Formats: sequence, C-alpha cells, structure tokens
Amino acid sequence: MTLKLYGTVTSACTQRVILVLHELGIKYDFIPVALMKGEHKDAKYTKDVHPFGRIPTLKDGDFQLFESRAICRYLVSKFGGNSALISAKEADSVHIGTLEQAISIEYSYFDPQVKALCYEHVFKGYLGKGAANTEEVEKATGILTTCLDYYESLLSKQNYLTGQEFGLVDIFVMPWVPWIYVLKFDDLISKRPNFEAWWKRVTARPSWQLVQELQPKTQ
Amino acid sequence: MTLKLYGTVTSACTQRVILVLHELGIKYDFIPVALMKGEHKDAKYTKDVHPFGRIPTLKDGDFQLFESRAICRYLVSKFGGNSALISAKEADSVHIGTLEQAISIEYSYFDPQVKALCYEHVFKGYLGKGAANTEEVEKATGILTTCLDYYESLLSKQNYLTGQEFGLVDIFVMPWVPWIYVLKFDDLISKRPNFEAWWKRVTARPSWQLVQELQPKTQ
Repeated sequence: MTLKLYGTVTSACTQRVILVLHELGIKYDFIPVALMKGEHKDAKYTKDVHPFGRIPTLKDGDFQLFESRAICRYLVSKFGGNSALISAKEADSVHIGTLEQAISIEYSYFDPQVKALCYEHVFKGYLGKGAANTEEVEKATGILTTCLDYYESLLSKQNYLTGQEFGLVDIFVMPWVPWIYVLKFDDLISKRPNFEAWWKRVTARPSWQLVQELQPKTQ
Repeated sequence: MTLKLYGTVTSACTQRVILVLHELGIKYDFIPVALMKGEHKDAKYTKDVHPFGRIPTLKDGDFQLFESRAICRYLVSKFGGNSALISAKEADSVHIGTLEQAISIEYSYFDPQVKALCYEHVFKGYLGKGAANTEEVEKATGILTTCLDYYESLLSKQNYLTGQEFGLVDIFVMPWVPWIYVLKFDDLISKRPNFEAWWKRVTARPSWQLVQELQPKTQ
C-alpha cells in the first residue's frame, strides 16, 4: 500500500519527511493541506489526521504518525536497510548518546531560533502584528550564533553533522537554512567556511533539488 | 569510574536525568552549577562542560554528553539492561515511530508551553520584565490544553504515556507537572481524571520521592 504524506511543500517540517522519502527511494502519495485556508484546524482534520492541527502526518496502511522527526526515524527504521541516515539501532551507547545529542541540538538551539527570527522579521508583517521585538531578535540571534559556531567547529573535523556520512541530522537542519538567507543574515553563514561548504555539499544532493522543484513558482 | 552530573536540583532538565539515574540504580557524583551566580555562562564552563552554557551535562570517563533527553537515552542504553524505560533498540518500526512521536509531543507541545507560562507568570516578575503578555499566555494555555486532552485520551487506555509500563516519556514529562500547580492551573489536571491518576501513580515512585528530598527547603 502506498504511503500517504499530509503536508505542505513550503513547510520545513514537511520538507524533512520528503527529503527522507527521496533519499530512501520510497514512493508516496502527497496530500496537500491548505494552511492558508485553515484546513489543518478543521475538526475532521484534527480528528482523523493530526490531533494538534499541524503538519506533516504519515499514513502507512493503518499506522499513522505525526511529528516530522518521528516520521523520519520511522521511515529509516522500516525502509532504510543499511542506510547511513541513522544507525542507532545497531549502535553502541556512545553512538546513541552522540546522535541523540545532535538531534536535540538541532531541536533546541537551531530550529526554534530560525523560526523565531522568521516570526519576528517576516510572519509578523504578514499577520499585521507590528514590528519585530528587538529583545526577541537579539536573544534568538545570540543562540543561533552559538549554534552555528558549534556546527562550524564540528564541520572542521567531519563532512556532516554526525560524522563522515550524510545523515538524519543533516536533513533535520537543512530546511531552515534557506531562511537565514531570506532574513539577510548571509554573513552568519559566509563567515563560517566549514558550515558554508557543508551547505553546498548537502544542497547538491538530488533529494534537495527535488524539494526545490516542488516549490510553488513565483511570478 | 563514577559518573559526574553537572546540574541544579531545581531544574526540570536536571531532574529528568536524576530520575533515570535512580530508576536504574546508577551511582553518580553531583556537581551543582550555580545558575543564580551565572556560573553556566563562565568561559571555562562553556569550554569544558556545555558549549551552549546550559545544564545538565554528564561525564562518563572521557565521554561527555549534554541535552537532558540525550543523556537519559544514553544511560538507558548503557546501563538499562532489559529496563522497560525504553525498548526502541530491539523494537520494530511501529514501536520506534510511536516512541519517537511520544517524545516529540512532550518536547513540542508540553514542555515549551509550561515553560512559557512559568516565564510569563513567574520568572518575568523575578526579572523585573513587567506583566504577563496575555496573547502569549492564551497561546500557551491553548496548546497545553490540547496536549493534556491528548494525554487524557491516551491514559484512558493505558497506565503510562507509552504503554502499560513506566518509561522514559513519563520521566520526560514529570518535572514540569508541579509547575502547573504552582501556576494555580490545578483544574487543568483535576478535570482530567486519567491524567490525575497517572500523576499519583508516577509520583509514588521512590525516584520521584528522592528528587523531592533533594530540593532546597523553604523556611
């Protein structure tokens, strides 16, 4: 039975899952959820698809799963075979601890800060919620800078965020990086040559190219 | 070599690790980090203990790990044996997906909302940052309510958050629950009898009692 992915191609969380599906060569049906129309808040959607009214959700026959990182781990576990994307199942405790730390760093220090900066500088404007809050911007920029310093140091010793092979943590981080450019914070990246080289490396992958092709075309 | 845990006994993240250490009967040395004195922001601390200037950090000989949930998973993986606290290593994909979803729900919908409410209603006062922001409070309360509804439904069918046995996700959720009472949002719990019964069940455990005994005594 073909997998069903509910989501929106412009969403970072949905993109994470699409990247994993393509890296593993898994076929799926994509069911677009119209966020702008509030479809994710419909009673039917929260009952049948996602109890918290978010995206993405994966349906694999009778099994249903939400939370992008959980879906990615499920896919690798079920379809990954000997995939290098994650190897914690067979790994020792040090490997598990290090992998979980890397996943948590992305979740705690990278993702929320880029998201907060997008909210302050971009989404607030759309929503008519006034100017960016300087204190929030400074706080988010500070933590993001520390995080990018950490990644820069890591990537001076290895090609990818969890070692010499492309893996899930690279995928988890990727979808928010373009927003650093949208926000005109290019120098956060250009000042960090190892991070910038990593970004060139991961965006050269066919899976990333495909995510770009899926994006709506601006006129 | 005895494990070293850097942290603060009043911190929810540190409490998670202490709970796991006690559930598994692991000996450790506790190195208190004086947050009020800003010790976690010292250059020596960020260099040697935690690059993001946070708590907790675990040192196990030469291996060093931060991020509370990552530390907990490492401990179960290394010292847990056949512990019911987590069983993803040996489990099938559906079990892995479901476990990761439960961990992500706690991280995305439970933890940040209680933390946000604490910031608005308690910490802002300490920090002299003015009154609570009504919009933030409403947003956090809304998501927390949805999350507790979800937990209530889950706990009507099982004794613990990931099944019939006490596990890591219960431990991840526990340290922020007392703050719901501190915030005087008792009815969020008392209106949900299955969640309330879960709370009585998990707080009866010796590991939770020990965390209470470690707390500084108010005069």
